[in-house]
Amino acid sequence: MNKERLKAVLESIAAGELSPDDGLARLEGLPYEDIGFARVDHHRHLRQGAPEVVFGEGKTPEQIVDIAGRIVERGSNVLVTRADYPTFELLRMRMPDAVYHEAARAVTVPRHEADQVGMVAVVTAGTADIPVAEEAAVTAEATGSRVERVYDVGVAGLHRLLGERERLAAANALVVVAGMEGALPSVVGGLVPGPVIAVPTSVGYGASFSGLAALLGMLTSCASNVTVVNIDNGFGAGFVASIINRKIEAAKAK
Amino acid sequence: MNKERLKAVLESIAAGELSPDDGLARLEGLPYEDIGFARVDHHRHLRQGAPEVVFGEGKTPEQIVDIAGRIVERGSNVLVTRADYPTFELLRMRMPDAVYHEAARAVTVPRHEADQVGMVAVVTAGTADIPVAEEAAVTAEATGSRVERVYDVGVAGLHRLLGERERLAAANALVVVAGMEGALPSVVGGLVPGPVIAVPTSVGYGASFSGLAALLGMLTSCASNVTVVNIDNGFGAGFVASIINRKIEAAKAK
Amino acid sequence: MNKERLKAVLESIAAGELSPDDGLARLEGLPYEDIGFARVDHHRHLRQGAPEVVFGEGKTPEQIVDIAGRIVERGSNVLVTRADYPTFELLRMRMPDAVYHEAARAVTVPRHEADQVGMVAVVTAGTADIPVAEEAAVTAEATGSRVERVYDVGVAGLHRLLGERERLAAANALVVVAGMEGALPSVVGGLVPGPVIAVPTSVGYGASFSGLAALLGMLTSCASNVTVVNIDNGFGAGFVASIINRKIEAAKAK
Amino acid sequence: MNKERLKAVLESIAAGELSPDDGLARLEGLPYEDIGFARVDHHRHLRQGAPEVVFGEGKTPEQIVDIAGRIVERGSNVLVTRADYPTFELLRMRMPDAVYHEAARAVTVPRHEADQVGMVAVVTAGTADIPVAEEAAVTAEATGSRVERVYDVGVAGLHRLLGERERLAAANALVVVAGMEGALPSVVGGLVPGPVIAVPTSVGYGASFSGLAALLGMLTSCASNVTVVNIDNGFGAGFVASIINRKIEAAKAK
Amino acid sequence: MNKERLKAVLESIAAGELSPDDGLARLEGLPYEDIGFARVDHHRHLRQGAPEVVFGEGKTPEQIVDIAGRIVERGSNVLVTRADYPTFELLRMRMPDAVYHEAARAVTVPRHEADQVGMVAVVTAGTADIPVAEEAAVTAEATGSRVERVYDVGVAGLHRLLGERERLAAANALVVVAGMEGALPSVVGGLVPGPVIAVPTSVGYGASFSGLAALLGMLTSCASNVTVVNIDNGFGAGFVASIINRKIEAAKAK
Amino acid sequence: MNKERLKAVLESIAAGELSPDDGLARLEGLPYEDIGFARVDHHRHLRQGAPEVVFGEGKTPEQIVDIAGRIVERGSNVLVTRADYPTFELLRMRMPDAVYHEAARAVTVPRHEADQVGMVAVVTAGTADIPVAEEAAVTAEATGSRVERVYDVGVAGLHRLLGERERLAAANALVVVAGMEGALPSVVGGLVPGPVIAVPTSVGYGASFSGLAALLGMLTSCASNVTVVNIDNGFGAGFVASIINRKIEAAKAK
Amino acid sequence: MNKERLKAVLESIAAGELSPDDGLARLEGLPYEDIGFARVDHHRHLRQGAPEVVFGEGKTPEQIVDIAGRIVERGSNVLVTRADYPTFELLRMRMPDAVYHEAARAVTVPRHEADQVGMVAVVTAGTADIPVAEEAAVTAEATGSRVERVYDVGVAGLHRLLGERERLAAANALVVVAGMEGALPSVVGGLVPGPVIAVPTSVGYGASFSGLAALLGMLTSCASNVTVVNIDNGFGAGFVASIINRKIEAAKAK
Amino acid sequence: MNKERLKAVLESIAAGELSPDDGLARLEGLPYEDIGFARVDHHRHLRQGAPEVVFGEGKTPEQIVDIAGRIVERGSNVLVTRADYPTFELLRMRMPDAVYHEAARAVTVPRHEADQVGMVAVVTAGTADIPVAEEAAVTAEATGSRVERVYDVGVAGLHRLLGERERLAAANALVVVAGMEGALPSVVGGLVPGPVIAVPTSVGYGASFSGLAALLGMLTSCASNVTVVNIDNGFGAGFVASIINRKIEAAKAK
Repeated sequence: MNKERLKAVLESIAAGELSPDDGLARLEGLPYEDIGFARVDHHRHLRQGAPEVVFGEGKTPEQIVDIAGRIVERGSNVLVTRADYPTFELLRMRMPDAVYHEAARAVTVPRHEADQVGMVAVVTAGTADIPVAEEAAVTAEATGSRVERVYDVGVAGLHRLLGERERLAAANALVVVAGMEGALPSVVGGLVPGPVIAVPTSVGYGASFSGLAALLGMLTSCASNVTVVNIDNGFGAGFVASIINRKIEAAKAK
Repeated sequence: MNKERLKAVLESIAAGELSPDDGLARLEGLPYEDIGFARVDHHRHLRQGAPEVVFGEGKTPEQIVDIAGRIVERGSNVLVTRADYPTFELLRMRMPDAVYHEAARAVTVPRHEADQVGMVAVVTAGTADIPVAEEAAVTAEATGSRVERVYDVGVAGLHRLLGERERLAAANALVVVAGMEGALPSVVGGLVPGPVIAVPTSVGYGASFSGLAALLGMLTSCASNVTVVNIDNGFGAGFVASIINRKIEAAKAK
Repeated sequence: MNKERLKAVLESIAAGELSPDDGLARLEGLPYEDIGFARVDHHRHLRQGAPEVVFGEGKTPEQIVDIAGRIVERGSNVLVTRADYPTFELLRMRMPDAVYHEAARAVTVPRHEADQVGMVAVVTAGTADIPVAEEAAVTAEATGSRVERVYDVGVAGLHRLLGERERLAAANALVVVAGMEGALPSVVGGLVPGPVIAVPTSVGYGASFSGLAALLGMLTSCASNVTVVNIDNGFGAGFVASIINRKIEAAKAK
Repeated sequence: MNKERLKAVLESIAAGELSPDDGLARLEGLPYEDIGFARVDHHRHLRQGAPEVVFGEGKTPEQIVDIAGRIVERGSNVLVTRADYPTFELLRMRMPDAVYHEAARAVTVPRHEADQVGMVAVVTAGTADIPVAEEAAVTAEATGSRVERVYDVGVAGLHRLLGERERLAAANALVVVAGMEGALPSVVGGLVPGPVIAVPTSVGYGASFSGLAALLGMLTSCASNVTVVNIDNGFGAGFVASIINRKIEAAKAK
Repeated sequence: MNKERLKAVLESIAAGELSPDDGLARLEGLPYEDIGFARVDHHRHLRQGAPEVVFGEGKTPEQIVDIAGRIVERGSNVLVTRADYPTFELLRMRMPDAVYHEAARAVTVPRHEADQVGMVAVVTAGTADIPVAEEAAVTAEATGSRVERVYDVGVAGLHRLLGERERLAAANALVVVAGMEGALPSVVGGLVPGPVIAVPTSVGYGASFSGLAALLGMLTSCASNVTVVNIDNGFGAGFVASIINRKIEAAKAK
Repeated sequence: MNKERLKAVLESIAAGELSPDDGLARLEGLPYEDIGFARVDHHRHLRQGAPEVVFGEGKTPEQIVDIAGRIVERGSNVLVTRADYPTFELLRMRMPDAVYHEAARAVTVPRHEADQVGMVAVVTAGTADIPVAEEAAVTAEATGSRVERVYDVGVAGLHRLLGERERLAAANALVVVAGMEGALPSVVGGLVPGPVIAVPTSVGYGASFSGLAALLGMLTSCASNVTVVNIDNGFGAGFVASIINRKIEAAKAK
Repeated sequence: MNKERLKAVLESIAAGELSPDDGLARLEGLPYEDIGFARVDHHRHLRQGAPEVVFGEGKTPEQIVDIAGRIVERGSNVLVTRADYPTFELLRMRMPDAVYHEAARAVTVPRHEADQVGMVAVVTAGTADIPVAEEAAVTAEATGSRVERVYDVGVAGLHRLLGERERLAAANALVVVAGMEGALPSVVGGLVPGPVIAVPTSVGYGASFSGLAALLGMLTSCASNVTVVNIDNGFGAGFVASIINRKIEAAKAK
Repeated sequence: MNKERLKAVLESIAAGELSPDDGLARLEGLPYEDIGFARVDHHRHLRQGAPEVVFGEGKTPEQIVDIAGRIVERGSNVLVTRADYPTFELLRMRMPDAVYHEAARAVTVPRHEADQVGMVAVVTAGTADIPVAEEAAVTAEATGSRVERVYDVGVAGLHRLLGERERLAAANALVVVAGMEGALPSVVGGLVPGPVIAVPTSVGYGASFSGLAALLGMLTSCASNVTVVNIDNGFGAGFVASIINRKIEAAKAK
């Protein structure tokens, strides 16, 4: 509840336009509505400048459709992550313009056009890291960023990566996705001046311990411009990269 | 080695101004010099837009002075992290304008003035997290960002944090430092639209496992705008926050 | 075997009403009966003031029905946790008044009415935490406590939680259920004066390590009124909260 | 800020007794003061019904004295935990009535008399667990509870424990402290009807992994009335046990 | 190859009864035969005084039958552990006197009668620990020990256990099987003078971490007469208990 | 309290020789005395057939002397483990016949002669494992077993070990002590028919993780006659080996 | 890009045979081609002296066939690891000379004959380790090494291993594969002078923690000639052993 | 004991030149001598083609001098690792030609000249990794290999590493030493055809967990020619690299 709104209410009371009880009720009016199993927060969009996101994992298709439906009704764009095809089909029945991004396992429901500005580079070490990278890319695009994909440029074949150096350096923010030893963000971090958001993936076996090796490697990176998100969290990485990218582009526009 | 420089060399050869052998030597000219125990990379400044940083941990005071001296000689600003007071005293003997930041355990040697632009908020949950926060703040300042410090606003006393909400929301980037359960970045992340860089600290005992609890908590944050750096890595968080902040301010300047 | 009963037996022997051998047999009379694979302890009810609980996980439906049947025969209420629907159907065939609590995956067989007194608040961070919360709620209700459910009030959307503050503060004991970073109990603990029983859930992925992140976060909570139970242990949390609640209500009744 | 106070402010504005701006200032009046390195929260006492606690670990003696001094000036009782003797001596210079509890490594500064009501039992498995138990006991006493100490009754000598059964069963709440395998809370939990707060200690070596073995053992206890706090967290256990105990006694008083 | 046999060979050579080459061949004669995928060691029986054991996990039914068949052909008893019913059926086709122990998931093929002497007590904390306990019991019986089963006597209901105290104290060796917090071996160890072999089971959830909690608890037991085997390793515990039991009984027989 | 003693008391009551109240008091007479910080259990000797052991770690020298003094006064032998030299000197002042075992860091106070019977072999992989092995050896000797020491026979030099094979096979029980990869118990277990008690040591660095590597290796040993105790727990291994050894020798004596 | 090629390009430019722009393009010509989801690196063969390897895990059969097809088209031999039978069948449709190695779960497509020189010994502790060993053996053969297989010679039956000592000592390099406690490489390392590459397997249960016990054991091996690869990484071990073996044989050929 | 020697003994017996008893004694003659706390294995040199190594960690200076003295007396070269300066001084008193390698914390005592052949490259990521690298280098030199040191070429400054590519590719074997994220071996492995032995170091803090991050990263390396040794195990890496290097050089010499 911001200061201005609070002040406005108080002034209405002082002016006798509002009774104390009505003022109380208004101050307590919560910016979400209760639909039984989940509270939809219509104001998050305003607070974070992003479309509403429904994190699909652990929710039933019915729950997802219900939550997404409420959001769409208010005219917001929706991004559903971790959604399988049957969930998409259910969504499409209610929202015919829903789009399925298969590699990313994500659904977008665009209610109004959103420009894609600036540039976020999404980079992977290997082929198996692509689904996580696509989740990041689709998220960044859905939140208004232009994305360039640079896939399969792992550190054991350095010349592949070096060939993309100029393109990587041009990005406002980079998402670097790697499993196994997770060395790619360190190497990329040394090549570019921008912020690198590293995403460890659960790709690997044995001592990769479902992504732990990559996670620890990225956290202890010797490159100073690297931050890290959770294992397989393509959404989070794409979301943060997009925030940074749009802030820079918005500053340009001023 | 960038494309333009490469092209220039090739054109000189085509023009007969340069022999193939000399061209070869020039292409192989490495942008660092060898001082026995560590290679000083004078070009990193150019690549990452930052002063040279000497990570002091695990180096002897003599090594630190030697490396810092080489950098300063070329006119770059220097930031030495994880430096104790005796190391500072040794540095000051050679570089009298060195400044010691006690809480941050850092030394700066300013060779030329650097404006501090935009705003990075550095936030801590408790009193014991302040040294790590100061490392972040000094780093952000040394790399050209204005910093606002918001300390001791942990989640068990929520009203303290809510009182700072406006200030936090104004930051281009936030560094949020917390030990124990590491819940503060999630709460701050829900309050602000900007990118939050979370720093787990080793503050705590028992099941905090030297910062592991806070680290895992931050990695699994339910707020979408949170990324994480290594335990106690104030430097890294301040560095990345500053990159983002300066990029935004630079875009404004255009 | 309590002191009074022991004394009574000894006095009967002294009075010649009981032979030493019969006394010996009586003293050794164990308050349980053996049904082959599990010993049913009919006295636990007396010792702990609660209905008999059958922990369903790892038992076959037949074993559950057999154990529950023995208890019901003596007139005790029964609570079966971690029971799927087929187990319920088998139970209902023998005990037609059995009730299935789907979200909680629990069955209750009420043999005699039990008032629900006082108030236990059961709180969740997200939608996916509800099954564990329901196990806690059903357990608290089955053991004689009135329950208020406050669901989906996670810390990344703080206004939702603050809107429930009065209700939370009114509880005699609170059960707070959260996965991922598990920050909710710390925040709730700072808002209310009563004891908070935190339940980490296995909701999450990657660095949540099946609930470990939430568990460590809750154990290192900066709020002083928080204690913790095992991951996903809704039963245990509801049971302890109900003990505390009923003790307080019982004290009022005196 | 509670509803009544909010309503009162609004009514004053409606009555013209308060200008909107003054009302705004009052609503924003934060219940703490800033002393540079830590925010002292004078209202916590009201919210949680306890004296102010200063967690001494990680603070300098000077910081502790400063914070404690502020609290005492307002007439609140203070409890300082994890304080060594030199810190106590410094505190005593400013607050001559400070009392040192050596085994608990705690200091209390009683500003006004507090009755000790009801009963909290503090139980240990071994001799080496006593310092943690004393921290719990001193905390419970400082927060208004009567404490009975039952020490060195570990499970490998069961007759010792059984001899204390009646005393344990009489407690409103129990704190059970154990290192190594941490089995004592399970056994005590089976003997008493009340809530058991288990405290794992770092006593042990090898596979005790600094208290991890005891912690995991307590979390997976087969007794339903056991909750757990952090390793060596005597303060937290004593604090929660005391909350429960005083709530029960307060209910009796009504 | 023992000293006597070696000496005998050398003496035969000295006596001219054996050529050096034949002697060499004889010395190199290895006491096993190669069947492609596994070397059957017919001498292990002699070295360890036990029937041949085929550890079934990770072998195909065909491999098991093949290995077991070779052993049986030489007249040894066989014990196959971790064998499902289809494997048993395959075994029975070739060895009609094979016996399936369902709860233990083990098969025995008795080639010659073996007395069951002395007494090994096999004890469990709960119902779900019985399969592991049965593997121990069947192993001890198959290796010549008499077994008494004492099941479902967990520490949260201490009177059940105390009622069995005399029986437990009479055992030459005890196998104590427990999941969750694994406290039972400590308590039993304090009640009996004999060696206690503790078996942690993977029974439990959450912080039991598939038996890790029980394992650590048993390793850090405060009872001095407890040793530990791998999680769920009923076979190993039964085997060692049986060795000890038979050694004691063999000593009596002398 | 055993059955016979209980029956005798009941018969005395029946005979009028004992009043019920006196009988009650007698039944409740607990076999230990309280000395403030630790309960000395004089009956443990009877229950476990061993001298009293004082585990020195975590106790002050004064506490150790006090506890040991109480035991010695009743004529029992005492073994103090984890005792440094100053503690020994303090003990010797009160008990002049105390003996210090330097390598084992143990003290014995022999009150009456104890034969050393049978044979326990104590084996180490390396030189650095000797302190733990000596703790085992001194414990076994103090509890009445003859010990043979076979040191520095690690698996990377197999011929050393094979040269001791006959001696190892002659032991009633073996204690095998190893750090680093902890492979020795598996190899010894394959060479001998008796029970092998494996002791992992914290000898090693890096991935030995303070004995964890050796501990896991021993728990997953492919030899069936191996059980394991805690890291560095020479006392426990020597104690159990001695129980087994004496039981066998006692059986021979019958 | 090697020095000679670079020099040649520069000389062509100097000679006027190549324009600077064309030279630039040529220098940037990357030695791989992009097929959408994976970059096939045709030069790796040259850099590492090995056939192209396609790591099959985590790729769809279609992806595998596509990548393998590109490689084969250029005349290189291909090795596909972690390939199931359906994948093989798909491969065979396009490359009829593909060969399936069932135990190794690998496919080879030989485009030109490769001699198998020298000798690599591949050794296993148990039967269940054979699949990993076969992956190593097939890899070593596919990369030009002769292999001798020595299977099922675990340390609990030492005579089996000792019987193979001469054969093991003759190898240029050894791959030693073991699960459970992973002791075999230490013992083999003590018997042979050559380099031992240890492969922990995920064979085992409980405290083997999916190969962690074996991994830690091998890393802390007391034998100095042991290095380690990832759990179940038969491919890596066979590959490195083959590099060493071929280098030695190549040196002989000079 | 090899076949030839065995056959020779048998033939001497057959020829009557040796009595069976003397033959037995000879066969049992063990190739080491017992000096109380450690068995010196004079034959290891023969078996592994290396000088005797004394692993200094965990041994007293007196033990080290004693063991080293025995070896030197027989004319072997000695390498003592993990030796501090006082230990060196003690060694020099007895062996005046002992040489101290300060950075490596190692002592060599050369009894006879050893050529240094071929080439082993020892590479580090940072300055702080140098002590471990020096241990590797000194070990490789002491065991007869020529060493080239390439220090401080970490992956965040890739151009440094690429400048050394030719030199790295020329090595028969490489030791690559790195702490923190441990990415260097993967990158080097992609650049060279030879075997890379990776050494994780404990350099780093926080999530490096004393070298665990680097260890896991190296084990899960995407480069196929990488094997790994224990954290900080410079000796082991240098030893294996030297074995490989000398084998190749020896093959050339044939």
